[in-house]
Amino acid sequence: MTAPLSIEINEQALQAEIDHLASISECPGPAVTRILFSEVDQQGRDYVKGLCAAAGLELRHDPVGNIFGRWQGSDDSLKPIGSGSHIDAIPNAGRYDGVVGVLGFIEAVRALQRAGFQPRRTMELIIFTAEEPTRFGLGCLGSRMLAGSLSSAQVGALRDKEGKSLDELRLGAGIDGDLGTVRLLPGAYEAFVELHIEQGPLLEMEDLPIGIVEKIAGPSTLHAVITGTGGHAGAVLMPVRHDALLAAAELALAVEKAALESGSPDTVATTGVFTIEPGAVNSIPCSATLEIDLRDTNLAARGRTQEHIEMAAGQIAHKRGVQIKTSLFNADPPAIADAKLVETVEQVCQDLAIPSKRMISRAYHDSLFMAQVCPTTMIFIPCLRGYSHRPDEYSSPEQIKTGVKVLASVLAKLAG
Amino acid sequence: MTAPLSIEINEQALQAEIDHLASISECPGPAVTRILFSEVDQQGRDYVKGLCAAAGLELRHDPVGNIFGRWQGSDDSLKPIGSGSHIDAIPNAGRYDGVVGVLGFIEAVRALQRAGFQPRRTMELIIFTAEEPTRFGLGCLGSRMLAGSLSSAQVGALRDKEGKSLDELRLGAGIDGDLGTVRLLPGAYEAFVELHIEQGPLLEMEDLPIGIVEKIAGPSTLHAVITGTGGHAGAVLMPVRHDALLAAAELALAVEKAALESGSPDTVATTGVFTIEPGAVNSIPCSATLEIDLRDTNLAARGRTQEHIEMAAGQIAHKRGVQIKTSLFNADPPAIADAKLVETVEQVCQDLAIPSKRMISRAYHDSLFMAQVCPTTMIFIPCLRGYSHRPDEYSSPEQIKTGVKVLASVLAKLAG
Repeated sequence: MTAPLSIEINEQALQAEIDHLASISECPGPAVTRILFSEVDQQGRDYVKGLCAAAGLELRHDPVGNIFGRWQGSDDSLKPIGSGSHIDAIPNAGRYDGVVGVLGFIEAVRALQRAGFQPRRTMELIIFTAEEPTRFGLGCLGSRMLAGSLSSAQVGALRDKEGKSLDELRLGAGIDGDLGTVRLLPGAYEAFVELHIEQGPLLEMEDLPIGIVEKIAGPSTLHAVITGTGGHAGAVLMPVRHDALLAAAELALAVEKAALESGSPDTVATTGVFTIEPGAVNSIPCSATLEIDLRDTNLAARGRTQEHIEMAAGQIAHKRGVQIKTSLFNADPPAIADAKLVETVEQVCQDLAIPSKRMISRAYHDSLFMAQVCPTTMIFIPCLRGYSHRPDEYSSPEQIKTGVKVLASVLAKLAG
Repeated sequence: MTAPLSIEINEQALQAEIDHLASISECPGPAVTRILFSEVDQQGRDYVKGLCAAAGLELRHDPVGNIFGRWQGSDDSLKPIGSGSHIDAIPNAGRYDGVVGVLGFIEAVRALQRAGFQPRRTMELIIFTAEEPTRFGLGCLGSRMLAGSLSSAQVGALRDKEGKSLDELRLGAGIDGDLGTVRLLPGAYEAFVELHIEQGPLLEMEDLPIGIVEKIAGPSTLHAVITGTGGHAGAVLMPVRHDALLAAAELALAVEKAALESGSPDTVATTGVFTIEPGAVNSIPCSATLEIDLRDTNLAARGRTQEHIEMAAGQIAHKRGVQIKTSLFNADPPAIADAKLVETVEQVCQDLAIPSKRMISRAYHDSLFMAQVCPTTMIFIPCLRGYSHRPDEYSSPEQIKTGVKVLASVLAKLAG
């Protein structure tokens, strides 16, 4: 056995890089907004590619814009180890979601290089395209396509709010090639490990520095389009109205009720998009569009919740004399982490004397889809009060350092 | 007594002008969008000023952009007769609201000229600036200022959604001068008569071509800003959420309930503006903004409705652990039409053998404020199913012709 590696993480350098990336944003700080293939998304990608190149990683990208940064191992006959996350950010988000897994990997590589480590297996960073669903309403676009979970018809039908297709946007960003070639062969990686902030409060509450993900809740998205009858807010008396907003309000409340009564404490249901037309103070809303996010590790409970929402939609439509069309936009199964890989991460934590616990990820991640490609798990670090997807999302430099040290040690163990 | 005038309305010419003005729009037809001081608003103003000039009307405008078109009478010692309406249109509106009163006046003048009529009193068209509240959230900007119902501090505080002030926008549109000089002296006009589509279904239901307005319901606007706690839609469990959208949904439903239970069948309450932040499908809404329109001819009932909404806001805020700030943006009294003027219009209808009825205007109009300046009433014509503020708003050329004939006859009687 060789002497244990002395892995020293430079948390100041990493924090400066996180802060610099956060400054590349569509909104004023501390909030971060980086939408797929926007100008700032391109700038963010360029900044991170520069860091990869400086760390000696070989760069390439695939036709959907997933970026790969490869640290070549000495034995080409061995499958590579994958790791990575995303750098896109929803409107008014924080600076750590996704970014810690991307910039953390680069610092892990630099720390291993400083320690004189030479990988036998190749290590490969993946910066996934559009983990966030902001642009197309569909999360994990890049990893979903790597897993082959999206048909070319589904890809072709994607449109953003301005009606732009994925093809139009990627070509505008200088990314071309056949989208049909994005899919990875099963087992393309020996293993995939994603470092991420927890986005929930459990590690902080238990004062634990590391969580090891055993299961990722499966997300689905329900769309609802409500068509009522518009009219003048002064002239149409209350009893004869068919107000689309009021039907939508009842539906959003029914979404909450369905989740609370699903029978599973893990069910969450959120109406995150809610828009009305025409949106003028003196006009009765004639239509409303809702996007509803449903998740559970328990597919039956998620299914019941969806059924209850659809039943409620029917009742509301009947009662208010409006039309409600619901459609299931995506319905992804939960992911189960690889048991052996979870044990490996657990062993690394024990060796480093870092306390850890096994946990469920309620948020989804690119690992949800990478788990369909190869053995996968995630390393979680705490974040303040569990806040995420908001400007005050926060993990301390010390917490991030611990996560990156565990990641580097796991990568060394898997690639050594 | 002179021989009765032979007033012949050219409904084809008028309809062509209505259709041409409708084509000057920010959105594709048949819908019409013309927002105050937008490029299309300027184009619309220019088109109508051209029609005025062609009809021999002397044009001027005041510092808030109200346009005046004057047909000089023979006796300068007599006060003028005013008439007019507006040409701005909310997003996705129809082509008749306001426009019928403006283009109808011009055709009335042309018909009187063709009939050889020479006015003793001056007749003056007023095209009011921003009857619709789209830009600043406040309706009847031009007529409100003519009536002196807006302090200079209130005018100075107006901002559109992009933070632009009235001063900035009017100067950009080439309109300057001291806003303090807009106010008219009480009694500036002998009378004011506004031709308008009903924006309600009553005339059509009773198959009546003309309504004569006795009273205009008083509008008020309540703003509500809801601040909850955002977060990741996957990671925050249902029982610990403080979702701003769900609080807003309950408030919108409470608005409906308060109107239904006001004790007055005339109370209407509409949540016409409803926006949430951040508006991402995987993010719990952290804030919501509502604009609520309340109207009644009965001020006490309107006041009770407002109180019930504010009480509900307090209860919802307490129950959901969110903050709800409500503020009264405007609260205008109802207007009572001039009894003698109503009788004059009624007499004209009888003389023309055109059936009419007296009615309440539930929609507000610039006449609400002109009634503070001088004796005022309105002439209503039917519109299809009472639809208004929507693209399928419709009055037939025949219905419009009858309204313009009554207007021309009333103007002749008042100015002759």
